[in-house]
Amino acid sequence: MTDETAPNRPEARSPRGFMDRRARDLVAERQILAAVSAVYERYGFEALDTGAFEYADALGKFLPDADRPNEGVFALQDDDEQWMALRYDLTAPLARFAAQNWETLPKPFRRYAFGPVWRNEKPGPGRFREFTQCDADTVGSARPEADAEIIAMAAEGLVAAGLPTGSAVIRINNRKLLNGLLATAGVSDERQKLGVLRAVDKLDRLGPDGVRLLLGEGRKDESGAFTKGAGLTAAAAEAVLAFTAAGGGGDRSSVLARLADIIGGSAEGDAGLAELAAIDGALKSLGVSEAQAVFEPAIVRGLEYYTGAVFEAELLLETTDEKGHPVRFGSIGGGGRYDDLVARFTGQTVPATGFSFGVSRLASALRAAGRDMAADVRGPVVVIAFNNDDMAHYFAAAGELRAAGIAAEVYLGSSGMKAQMKYADRRLAPAAVILGGDEIAAGTVTIKDLDLGRELAAGITDNSQWRGERPGQISCPRADLVAAVAKIVRGG
Amino acid sequence: MTDETAPNRPEARSPRGFMDRRARDLVAERQILAAVSAVYERYGFEALDTGAFEYADALGKFLPDADRPNEGVFALQDDDEQWMALRYDLTAPLARFAAQNWETLPKPFRRYAFGPVWRNEKPGPGRFREFTQCDADTVGSARPEADAEIIAMAAEGLVAAGLPTGSAVIRINNRKLLNGLLATAGVSDERQKLGVLRAVDKLDRLGPDGVRLLLGEGRKDESGAFTKGAGLTAAAAEAVLAFTAAGGGGDRSSVLARLADIIGGSAEGDAGLAELAAIDGALKSLGVSEAQAVFEPAIVRGLEYYTGAVFEAELLLETTDEKGHPVRFGSIGGGGRYDDLVARFTGQTVPATGFSFGVSRLASALRAAGRDMAADVRGPVVVIAFNNDDMAHYFAAAGELRAAGIAAEVYLGSSGMKAQMKYADRRLAPAAVILGGDEIAAGTVTIKDLDLGRELAAGITDNSQWRGERPGQISCPRADLVAAVAKIVRGG
Repeated sequence: MTDETAPNRPEARSPRGFMDRRARDLVAERQILAAVSAVYERYGFEALDTGAFEYADALGKFLPDADRPNEGVFALQDDDEQWMALRYDLTAPLARFAAQNWETLPKPFRRYAFGPVWRNEKPGPGRFREFTQCDADTVGSARPEADAEIIAMAAEGLVAAGLPTGSAVIRINNRKLLNGLLATAGVSDERQKLGVLRAVDKLDRLGPDGVRLLLGEGRKDESGAFTKGAGLTAAAAEAVLAFTAAGGGGDRSSVLARLADIIGGSAEGDAGLAELAAIDGALKSLGVSEAQAVFEPAIVRGLEYYTGAVFEAELLLETTDEKGHPVRFGSIGGGGRYDDLVARFTGQTVPATGFSFGVSRLASALRAAGRDMAADVRGPVVVIAFNNDDMAHYFAAAGELRAAGIAAEVYLGSSGMKAQMKYADRRLAPAAVILGGDEIAAGTVTIKDLDLGRELAAGITDNSQWRGERPGQISCPRADLVAAVAKIVRGG
Repeated sequence: MTDETAPNRPEARSPRGFMDRRARDLVAERQILAAVSAVYERYGFEALDTGAFEYADALGKFLPDADRPNEGVFALQDDDEQWMALRYDLTAPLARFAAQNWETLPKPFRRYAFGPVWRNEKPGPGRFREFTQCDADTVGSARPEADAEIIAMAAEGLVAAGLPTGSAVIRINNRKLLNGLLATAGVSDERQKLGVLRAVDKLDRLGPDGVRLLLGEGRKDESGAFTKGAGLTAAAAEAVLAFTAAGGGGDRSSVLARLADIIGGSAEGDAGLAELAAIDGALKSLGVSEAQAVFEPAIVRGLEYYTGAVFEAELLLETTDEKGHPVRFGSIGGGGRYDDLVARFTGQTVPATGFSFGVSRLASALRAAGRDMAADVRGPVVVIAFNNDDMAHYFAAAGELRAAGIAAEVYLGSSGMKAQMKYADRRLAPAAVILGGDEIAAGTVTIKDLDLGRELAAGITDNSQWRGERPGQISCPRADLVAAVAKIVRGG
């Protein structure tokens, strides 16, 4: 590591799209993971941690002809020539793990996992190439109750993470409903079905009129660019629009009743309805309220991946962008049912269902909901160091505070009092402890309440008044140090 | 992700040297990280998380001429042609971060960090290419008290992680002592000094006689291979051996007194002694006992990296290998003072000191010390599912248990009673809850205590006796479900 003599020193910078995070950023994410993990474990989900790398073929990406298969993933060749890639989600490693251990796993296999995932994409503002995901999946159960349980767990996890009840909702749909409706309308071409899903997915942005065009011949946008439509007949397009509009209002049962009228008839549609009815029943048994989870046929959530139920958690609060305009915060997580998880490896189709969220995304949602845990982050109490010969006194004071569970440190730099107070300020210290020669001789200690000091100082404009009042500063017997600091730190 | 039709399915396997870890493996590591983080924060150390990648030049490895600079690290070229590599420790990212933010950081900068690191090395039994490290460092303080504080924190961290007091010791040395001794002996050549360090580092394995040879002309081992020695004179070699033998016995002060007699005289040796004396004083103020931290001049700990104090935590317990032979467990962590952390980037020398340990290594030490947290891992209580129409009853029971903080789940597979009991067994469930039609009609519930059942079953050989006694099985009113299960789960 020593090359001070090197003429070209490296520049100290982190790679593009990678983030350094300090205590203020980390506190919310750690708290979220601890709270959500506790919920998932209470539901009987087992922790699983897989390595950062998977073999590229196991990730399910096709290797390009090019030298390195790095399309969207960070890939490199191992010394035995096999391509490995950093995982881009937690589902692909679960698939590999489940297939590898299927014979010996307890089934259904319920696991949760959290950790970093990596995407080799162009970074941008708020768009990183490494971020933390948290997933829970049940592998090996085709029961709709397994979906319901994942939904219940997600709802409880959001509350446990700190989102006030009522500030988020989980919207549920079932891919089979639209498939059934399209079958009844005579649409069986997979490309055409995909076009319908793509059109419905734009409902939020384009409204029913725009989507109607995309369901039919196509749509020209403001710039004049033309997007080819799904090519449905006018009647079929209206049926799809009626279907997507059946969500709003009433409880889950009444949405089901409306949907039965619209899509009823096809076997696949009926199967989807029966699954949703079973999900509704299980949600009731699990105590998930009508406000926490609703049926919403307009939800698409991924195009080709899901095979049955899909769900999406959304923040309901009005939030504003940096210019103060109201914005929809949007999705904070989602998931659904997918059936070919293990089949890619073994050929054996295994039903699975799961939910995933991005941890910093949820942390942003918490901030938007007024639960900014970073605001509560405080540094340690700083014991000011005046004199080398008195270090034992300072360490004793810090030790007593730590023993009482209060974070504390002795200043260990080489600067004077003023710089030490500035240091305490930068560390967001709640208090500074002053044990000068006079205090030590008299058996007392001076404590500065730094938060109160800042507050009071704001109301004092006169320098001599400041010196007279010494805002936020108290003196007490040395024996009362811990009690006095605890009162400041814990506000009690 | 769908290619069931592919003729060649990928094999489900994890890359060599990477590990899947399930709940039993994870519980100890998570508990260690939580306990140690709490200690480090109480000492005023701030959490820091950096990205997985650093630019290769910032990692301080020299790029070979070859196509890819992957010597020991996992490296790849970003699309702007810059080489990035996964971090191989947590110190290099700290160096980069500190240099990048030096102007605005509170100084001294105290940070702790934990997370995976990656080494592109040949994997083997117990030797992985990804593992979790946990570090704490103080950057910007030259004070010996900063070393003492790191040592105190490490000692407290080991106890907090679960190591019984007295089962580990931190051995402390100072690189300046041996340098001073060698200066007095007229040795100033850096290569020769390195040879001395290498020889001393083999004291454990070769004993004083072997090391004497390596300090002098050299040593032929059992196979006949000759290792060239450091080339010291006989007198200088004896002085080094006397130095390394000065540790055993007495408290830290008495070791210092012995060392003063041996190495006294050179300016660097005296500086090292003064630092150790200051460390001793601060350790006393910090309440670190003579049993927890000792001075041990035979400790080497890395060759070129450290510039002053070095420390190593060692497990003291007698442990045995898989064949039952007693083995020294050895080091469970270490660190020391190093001064060119930031200089490689900025040219400005900044003093730093830190301690690092491998989390699975500490987990192994805990197991060796009889604190195997994995043994306490239990799965959820399993509610047996007999009948689709009664799912609401099962979910209600699981919900009540969860609300009481007891992990519980309804079996969601499609197998019968016998397979469900086997599932509960595989999940290490403490209890199974049985709500058959009879129980529901009668307002009762049957609970199987699975641990007790296994225990009792071991003493029952007769099948009819089994049926008569139903070991570990109780029946109670449905309203008493939570209380009865809690008694089993919590043993109370």
